[in-house]
Amino acid sequence: MEDYEIFDLGAFSFQRGATLRNAKLAYKTFGKLNAAKDNVIVYPTWYSGFQQDNYWLIGKGMALDPDKYFIIIPNMFGNGMSSSPSNTPEPYNAGRFPNVTIYDNVRAQHRLVTEKFGIEKIRMVVGWSMGALQAFQWGALYPDMVDIIVPFCGSAKCSRHNFVFLEGVKAALTADAVWAEGFYKERPTRGLRAVGRVYAGWGLSQAFYRQQLDSKDLGYSSMEDFLVAFWEGHFLARDANDLLAMLWTWQYGDISDNELYHGDFKKALAAIKPKAYVMPCRTDLYFPPEDSEVEVANMPNARLVPFESVWGHFAGGPGTSVEDVKFLDGKLKELLAG
Amino acid sequence: MEDYEIFDLGAFSFQRGATLRNAKLAYKTFGKLNAAKDNVIVYPTWYSGFQQDNYWLIGKGMALDPDKYFIIIPNMFGNGMSSSPSNTPEPYNAGRFPNVTIYDNVRAQHRLVTEKFGIEKIRMVVGWSMGALQAFQWGALYPDMVDIIVPFCGSAKCSRHNFVFLEGVKAALTADAVWAEGFYKERPTRGLRAVGRVYAGWGLSQAFYRQQLDSKDLGYSSMEDFLVAFWEGHFLARDANDLLAMLWTWQYGDISDNELYHGDFKKALAAIKPKAYVMPCRTDLYFPPEDSEVEVANMPNARLVPFESVWGHFAGGPGTSVEDVKFLDGKLKELLAG
Repeated sequence: MEDYEIFDLGAFSFQRGATLRNAKLAYKTFGKLNAAKDNVIVYPTWYSGFQQDNYWLIGKGMALDPDKYFIIIPNMFGNGMSSSPSNTPEPYNAGRFPNVTIYDNVRAQHRLVTEKFGIEKIRMVVGWSMGALQAFQWGALYPDMVDIIVPFCGSAKCSRHNFVFLEGVKAALTADAVWAEGFYKERPTRGLRAVGRVYAGWGLSQAFYRQQLDSKDLGYSSMEDFLVAFWEGHFLARDANDLLAMLWTWQYGDISDNELYHGDFKKALAAIKPKAYVMPCRTDLYFPPEDSEVEVANMPNARLVPFESVWGHFAGGPGTSVEDVKFLDGKLKELLAG
Repeated sequence: MEDYEIFDLGAFSFQRGATLRNAKLAYKTFGKLNAAKDNVIVYPTWYSGFQQDNYWLIGKGMALDPDKYFIIIPNMFGNGMSSSPSNTPEPYNAGRFPNVTIYDNVRAQHRLVTEKFGIEKIRMVVGWSMGALQAFQWGALYPDMVDIIVPFCGSAKCSRHNFVFLEGVKAALTADAVWAEGFYKERPTRGLRAVGRVYAGWGLSQAFYRQQLDSKDLGYSSMEDFLVAFWEGHFLARDANDLLAMLWTWQYGDISDNELYHGDFKKALAAIKPKAYVMPCRTDLYFPPEDSEVEVANMPNARLVPFESVWGHFAGGPGTSVEDVKFLDGKLKELLAG
């Protein structure tokens, strides 16, 4: 297990009504907070990602350089490290874990940043996929606190098509009766493997597979090897209820679903004052650039900066596509220098 | 049950080695075969489709006018009407149904057309999706017999990405232990419903859902209603093994996988002498136009005629998108007049 810190949230009331009495926010930091406390980057996790699945974007000489910046990776609720179905005691355990919104996640992260570290200014919030959703949410909730947001391969609101794609993922997992409505006695491995196979078609583009990058670039010995070793392997290493908890957060993700914006999505976007590069990938099958265009058009300081890549959703992470990582890192440097 | 005819294939040996002793080809005809026997249109079925799911393209005043043409709809093996897991007696029943190729399907159809009707010339072979695959296969196997082919929203070979998408469909179905490796005692309804939900994201485009055409155009009362009433309903009305049999045929679909072309895909495409309109939909998520472009570039008499539509795979059928049906019907008329 990776080393990580825990910020104790105490009795944390979620937006949908439940309260966890000993809610935990797990996080990891890189670098040192300077005296002015103005070198902070917040870099939230993504669907099914642990904190260590974020490290690829951090390094000496990269934009996210720990010699310069104090980088905080907060783990999303439900990812198995922060409070999650798999680590919460009865009665809110397993299939009874509360529905958690993206607002809940960012509010908790805000408490970590302010209460634990006394930080008042954040230089940048950057994130992939559901991490992008959190970056948008930071921008809409705390526009005066954040200088820059870089949501890449994600959206500020789950689109209807994206919702449907996730229904397929959920249905594949819960078709396995071993899941037992969340109170399984053994892992629902058929369902977890099925999630991997369903996801495999969505995560990467038609062109990625056409060009056989699974073998030519990633080195898998066959497509079946890619499906088993990468996709099934990834989801078998996750807890089924944790996956479902994060999936709910994703499906109901909407930065305007809170007491500030009351569901007025355009108003929430318009409130994002931080400078923003919104970075979709041209071939992302569930976060298509068309949705990002709508977002950018409604944000005051945003620019659309697409990945021109065949890596689909994986243009943005997790460090798999070398060229795309370079492109992203360059854009982050550009923003941080500006 | 729809009325249909049965052509008895006798002992039919499939390409992969199995022989069904009483193989059946179910079919339906519209119109009358003229004396010259030169007014024949063959219109094969699609994945999970029954013959009646093809009727929408046939009608007085349409290109496929039964007053002019003798239209034959052969049911694909595995669709539950021709020989299929669900209607074949032991020992080749259920989970032991043989693997059937697209070559097997078209060879059987050729026997129907020649032996039953004495037809030597076919004016047109037209089909949607796996029906398109059969149209391509007709063109490659019997180029001197067929005048025109119109494969729409389909391909001559299952792409790697398409294969992966289908792995997700299969995994969702077989995650349901009730399926019991094909020897179920009751329907695996969880798995069948999951197939519907997985398919829902693939069948229609991101833009279709963005524009809410499921409710605005198709009249479903909510997206969940669309998922249950349309998608789950469609697959619950199919036999699980039948779906898996057709899925195998699709995944291993390749018009060059036979003794004529020995896997030389370009050679098989080059052999398609019939005039062809290859009609992908611009937003089809599993038959993207890029694959059709490769096909057309290798065919001697083909033209790419895409549907500029947000209906994704459903631009091509089954009659759901009124504008796209008009466009298709116009193109068929153009070809038949030429």
